[in-house]
Amino acid sequence: MIYYFDNAATTKVDDEITKLIDKYNGEKYFNPSSLTAFSLSVAKDIQSARESVAGVFGCKADEIYFTSGGTESDNTAILGSLSKHTGNIVTTETEHSAVYKTVNYLKNKGYEIRFAAVNSDGSVNAESLINNVDENTLLVAVMHVNNETGAINNIGELVKKVKSKNPKTLFFSDGTQAAGKIKVNLANSGVDAYAFSGHKFHAPKGIGGLYIKSNAKISQLHFGGGQEKGFRSGTENVSAIIAMSQALKTASDLIKENSEKFAEYKTILLKAFDTLGDYKIICCDGSPAIMSVAFENIKSQVLSNILEQDGIIIGLGSACSSKNKQNRIMTAAGLERKYIEGVVRISFSKYNTTEETEFLAKKMTEHIKMLRDLQ
Amino acid sequence: MIYYFDNAATTKVDDEITKLIDKYNGEKYFNPSSLTAFSLSVAKDIQSARESVAGVFGCKADEIYFTSGGTESDNTAILGSLSKHTGNIVTTETEHSAVYKTVNYLKNKGYEIRFAAVNSDGSVNAESLINNVDENTLLVAVMHVNNETGAINNIGELVKKVKSKNPKTLFFSDGTQAAGKIKVNLANSGVDAYAFSGHKFHAPKGIGGLYIKSNAKISQLHFGGGQEKGFRSGTENVSAIIAMSQALKTASDLIKENSEKFAEYKTILLKAFDTLGDYKIICCDGSPAIMSVAFENIKSQVLSNILEQDGIIIGLGSACSSKNKQNRIMTAAGLERKYIEGVVRISFSKYNTTEETEFLAKKMTEHIKMLRDLQ
Repeated sequence: MIYYFDNAATTKVDDEITKLIDKYNGEKYFNPSSLTAFSLSVAKDIQSARESVAGVFGCKADEIYFTSGGTESDNTAILGSLSKHTGNIVTTETEHSAVYKTVNYLKNKGYEIRFAAVNSDGSVNAESLINNVDENTLLVAVMHVNNETGAINNIGELVKKVKSKNPKTLFFSDGTQAAGKIKVNLANSGVDAYAFSGHKFHAPKGIGGLYIKSNAKISQLHFGGGQEKGFRSGTENVSAIIAMSQALKTASDLIKENSEKFAEYKTILLKAFDTLGDYKIICCDGSPAIMSVAFENIKSQVLSNILEQDGIIIGLGSACSSKNKQNRIMTAAGLERKYIEGVVRISFSKYNTTEETEFLAKKMTEHIKMLRDLQ
Repeated sequence: MIYYFDNAATTKVDDEITKLIDKYNGEKYFNPSSLTAFSLSVAKDIQSARESVAGVFGCKADEIYFTSGGTESDNTAILGSLSKHTGNIVTTETEHSAVYKTVNYLKNKGYEIRFAAVNSDGSVNAESLINNVDENTLLVAVMHVNNETGAINNIGELVKKVKSKNPKTLFFSDGTQAAGKIKVNLANSGVDAYAFSGHKFHAPKGIGGLYIKSNAKISQLHFGGGQEKGFRSGTENVSAIIAMSQALKTASDLIKENSEKFAEYKTILLKAFDTLGDYKIICCDGSPAIMSVAFENIKSQVLSNILEQDGIIIGLGSACSSKNKQNRIMTAAGLERKYIEGVVRISFSKYNTTEETEFLAKKMTEHIKMLRDLQ
């Protein structure tokens, strides 16, 4: 029995999605670029998937491009947006590595990288962000939902402020932790580009997407057979595209129901943590699916190891950076030293139950008490 | 009933491979970058997959990087190899679009692109290739097996000649149509980089790999979480990696058996075509899995449409370029005008049978006769 509370790292693929994947791998396996009726039918299915994704995000189908995942989408949006060779990019130190490492690469290429201040939950300080934007700002990159804390940035508001200061600045948002978790309306937000990744909402790994607003100028990174209207060459990952589209629709339909369930789970956990004391909520009112807390003088890695003996899996921040020694995001967010090694990310999916959460609360409380008693 | 003879475009995923995919999507779905035992087990499975791929290709495991497919591998090898801002690249006009379009992009960036002459089967003229290499040649890109004709380039020989003229030149080969079809030994070949793609040998679409020789210098195109030793960031496409590794092993073990079967199929077809006359073999003695022929005054698109009524699917060259009006590869290979619209690519997989091939031979003969009678 596994109690899986690390759904921000990755998720189980739904059984119905698995059936879809099997169908497109084993029956409708035809190359969508061929001209037979079999292939054209597959190409049509891809187009329907694109329309479904656009429907969920409130944008046009031809603004959605399928990619190999969030990292490729982030890289494409950032690297593809720089038509000029000089200028500045405004972002934060709490972005996902796929953004943070990419802008650092651009720093070496001669672009000026400006990091706006962030709040204690890892969200961006809006005033600082706007203050950093000027006539030479080519790109603003601010994630929608922080992957380590769950904090939500109000992208619509930020886009408005950035554009009123410099209408030419391109606004990109990494929506990897938002898609399928909170309501996203891309046309309303005014954002120029937006990245998402299938495996965060019960679709398989290796598939993602990039929204590019009709009039936004972003260049391709790959060259080849001209798939995705020439923007993303390479034989389409058909089964994963269909899977992601269906999984996104399902997740989107469940947002309200899940949000209510997850709020209940958070209450169960906070009630248990209150009996312990000496802990700090880093973010609990952001994404419904994520809560991040830190326990004073507790090493979250040790806690995680002990919980694993009970079959419980929790997160310690981003899976992608779990092998790094320092917590960049919590450091940027100014977390006190006594908490910095004790940060725990608990992230829910529709598969989690009240009983599982009660078990998690019980075991966390037990083990933290025990660890503290040992000190 | 479908008679599928377009296996160079893409292949059906094996049922046993499908089971593996389902297992990693539905059970072992953990993020390999996390630090739990569950995740570490997945990371270990990826490493075993890498070792298996290296075993098939006769190279070291740490020389294999997993990517999203052949196009990404081609792009990475070419774009990542150019440490200098000036110089020339030697290649051919019969390369796959993922190479051809990428070098054309580099032409616009100021690199000199030199196209070596090709033979009538689309293979490179070795003498012309070597004559084009000089002290400013940064990269040579020559595919292992031509995707439209099946012609094989002797990569080992070409590498030797290129390196003896300029040891600093990096030699990249797109092995997309070779992997799992003919014996490939990368260490022996001396090639610096080599691309392959899973969906050509019964693994799913959206997964591929890039071999980079230990001392070859190729830079990453993506930045992020540092997966694949920092070379290819992005959550690993676990199920597809495991699937590709297993499918490659299976395909590799079947090379001898398949080659014998396919030779028989080619004989059946050629015998039938001989009764028709007025046709030309473009390539039949290259890849066991591909034969390309052209029928005088027959439009292959029309022939393909008619065959489809019988449930038969054949290829018209690369699926990736099937929507283009002109056949770049056949034009470069100097095919006579009367044949240029009549090129047919028949490509086999282990699922094709003698009976199927006899049916194909019968139907092709019938329809070509009929089309010629109508003229």
